[in-house]
Amino acid sequence: MDTHKKTQVVIVGGGVAGLMLSQLLHVEGISCVILERQTRAYTEGRIRAGVLEFGTVNLMRKIGVSERMDRLGLLHEGFALMDDGEKVRIALHDLVETDVMVYGQTEITIDLMDACVARGTPIVFEVKDVVLHDFESSAPYVTYIKDGSQHRLDCDFIAGCDGAHGVCRATLPDAAKYAVEKVYPFGWLGILSDVPPMDHELIYSNHERGFALASQRSSTRSRYYIQCDVTEKIENWSDDRIWDELEVRLGDTTDHRITRGPSLEKSIAPLKSFVCEKMQHGRLFIAGDAAHIVPPTGAKGLNLAASDVSYLADALIAHYKLGEEAGLKGYTDRALSRIWKAERFSWSMTQLTHRFPQMTAFDRKMQKAELSYIRNSAAAQTSIAENYIGLPY
Amino acid sequence: MDTHKKTQVVIVGGGVAGLMLSQLLHVEGISCVILERQTRAYTEGRIRAGVLEFGTVNLMRKIGVSERMDRLGLLHEGFALMDDGEKVRIALHDLVETDVMVYGQTEITIDLMDACVARGTPIVFEVKDVVLHDFESSAPYVTYIKDGSQHRLDCDFIAGCDGAHGVCRATLPDAAKYAVEKVYPFGWLGILSDVPPMDHELIYSNHERGFALASQRSSTRSRYYIQCDVTEKIENWSDDRIWDELEVRLGDTTDHRITRGPSLEKSIAPLKSFVCEKMQHGRLFIAGDAAHIVPPTGAKGLNLAASDVSYLADALIAHYKLGEEAGLKGYTDRALSRIWKAERFSWSMTQLTHRFPQMTAFDRKMQKAELSYIRNSAAAQTSIAENYIGLPY
Repeated sequence: MDTHKKTQVVIVGGGVAGLMLSQLLHVEGISCVILERQTRAYTEGRIRAGVLEFGTVNLMRKIGVSERMDRLGLLHEGFALMDDGEKVRIALHDLVETDVMVYGQTEITIDLMDACVARGTPIVFEVKDVVLHDFESSAPYVTYIKDGSQHRLDCDFIAGCDGAHGVCRATLPDAAKYAVEKVYPFGWLGILSDVPPMDHELIYSNHERGFALASQRSSTRSRYYIQCDVTEKIENWSDDRIWDELEVRLGDTTDHRITRGPSLEKSIAPLKSFVCEKMQHGRLFIAGDAAHIVPPTGAKGLNLAASDVSYLADALIAHYKLGEEAGLKGYTDRALSRIWKAERFSWSMTQLTHRFPQMTAFDRKMQKAELSYIRNSAAAQTSIAENYIGLPY
Repeated sequence: MDTHKKTQVVIVGGGVAGLMLSQLLHVEGISCVILERQTRAYTEGRIRAGVLEFGTVNLMRKIGVSERMDRLGLLHEGFALMDDGEKVRIALHDLVETDVMVYGQTEITIDLMDACVARGTPIVFEVKDVVLHDFESSAPYVTYIKDGSQHRLDCDFIAGCDGAHGVCRATLPDAAKYAVEKVYPFGWLGILSDVPPMDHELIYSNHERGFALASQRSSTRSRYYIQCDVTEKIENWSDDRIWDELEVRLGDTTDHRITRGPSLEKSIAPLKSFVCEKMQHGRLFIAGDAAHIVPPTGAKGLNLAASDVSYLADALIAHYKLGEEAGLKGYTDRALSRIWKAERFSWSMTQLTHRFPQMTAFDRKMQKAELSYIRNSAAAQTSIAENYIGLPY
């Protein structure tokens, strides 16, 4: 056993949620240590989301980690919904006077990691066997194995930012009782390639062969997705087969062409909605993917992690600076209110744009009628836009 | 066989759709004859819808049959959505500067019937065995039995306004191939009583025991509904049992009380969405319930009948007055565009407010999240309001 060390907040998980929380606390002078299971290179290499809500952009600015983002990120003033070739642009900027920013999660992770290192926020990589102790008391601690020896870290609070499969939710008493879940009968096959995107904005396409999304991480890096059966094997999808399928499903946008290139990454992910309605117990708090999963259709996963840690940081700061406990007590309720609305939006966007195996002729008519209605309704477009740019914190 | 008679348009069905169409044609000097299976008293006694869109109100005024409606109808500036006691008012007037009018279908039928009689529009009641002939040619005719003898009526056009079970859709070639349907796993049990309504506006309540609707036909006549199993028998529902159930499901609106009274009518109706996407063939055109059914949640049934016959009247008038055929050719497409949007709204209102037998915890969370979202979003409220007052013709 290593000698006891002490910090104010132990953050389990060094992804965007944990890193962002550490910097929100850092700027207020609250100490923390991040424990991460993977190596730094692995953490920085993960290919994930790329569309940032206004609130997430602001959070990055607030913690002073926005220099690269503001320089390299692309402001998108709209996106398109398409159904059997009928295209409706949701003009975010015109409708709600706000853009979203396209900037890869990979880049955000690098920026946050750099800031942590520069500011001396301790991050311990490649930790194993993390165990949370005594979080029902006022003196919790965390033990873990690093380089073969056990360590103990005393703290005031534990922040669980370790994702859906991490130890924190699993340790939360009775968490399973509070889980609400929906599994979709399909997955997304994604391809990342260093080719120019087919359009300067995102296109969500409902095609008879299934959903497709033309997305991007930058003006030279494209990210495309196609709806596929969850039982599909990525080995059966050559790059050419993926590009062929994308051309079919996105080809109706006649004025744009897909540029093909070798895949930097390709993979199949299942689609799921999940919420753990218990996000705290004693001095343990969970945030981000540890507490909830959204289908990626609404681009909400990363952004919900950001709002969660913003609420948690507010509550911890109020505790340390003002001695106020209301924020900590109300953390779950405050976070869930926004989470459920984002879950609803992600679910409804998924319902609107995907072909469901069991869908009836009537269900399909509802998709088409909804898009026709949206095309002619400023109110419906505004509703989509305000959700897409992110509901207020 | 009676001697041949001739008119320009034979209207099969003397409900609101047929009566309204006859008066739209009458004001343009186009002759028609209405054939109705029931007696006048029966037709006028049917208890049906009671919420008129702005467009329906305008149509009644356009044909000069609005005197009683404008005097006795109640303008409603809003309505309420409620879920487990959480109430959200949709302020129609404030959101879209338009009200709806509460005025019973029974009253509209009486007004239209009186106008037909006063203006000499022929209505033949209690006809049997209506058969449509030669509507693929330019000289269709209709035969029917009245008082035991057969009659023949020659015409230019046949308008099928005879409802879901009438002869007109059944006669339309291949109509079944164009039918799109959804049957809901519940019905509505309705009660009509001469008691003051519990509120001056309508309340749509999603309660754990099932949906309930506090509605009205006038300031002294209430119409309430409760969601029930489709297998329920009305004999098992005494008035007291219905009032008891309504008090449970609507009781959370603490500032209002239900006034009980003897039922003037009570019945159980199944809920269905249905559209026949073929609404014409040759010189036969169908409109209203003959072509589509909506679940009553959106109060769209009567109003869709009104827009259908408005389109059909426009097309017939253009034919007779201007020799233009485009309106007749395009009737189905024009009508379907509005019908599908109303079907979508009725379906989504039903989804939001009813308890479905197979619904999961996640489905229920989506209902609650949607209402929470609506409560805080002017755009979402406006979207509901613009659908409720009626999308433009």
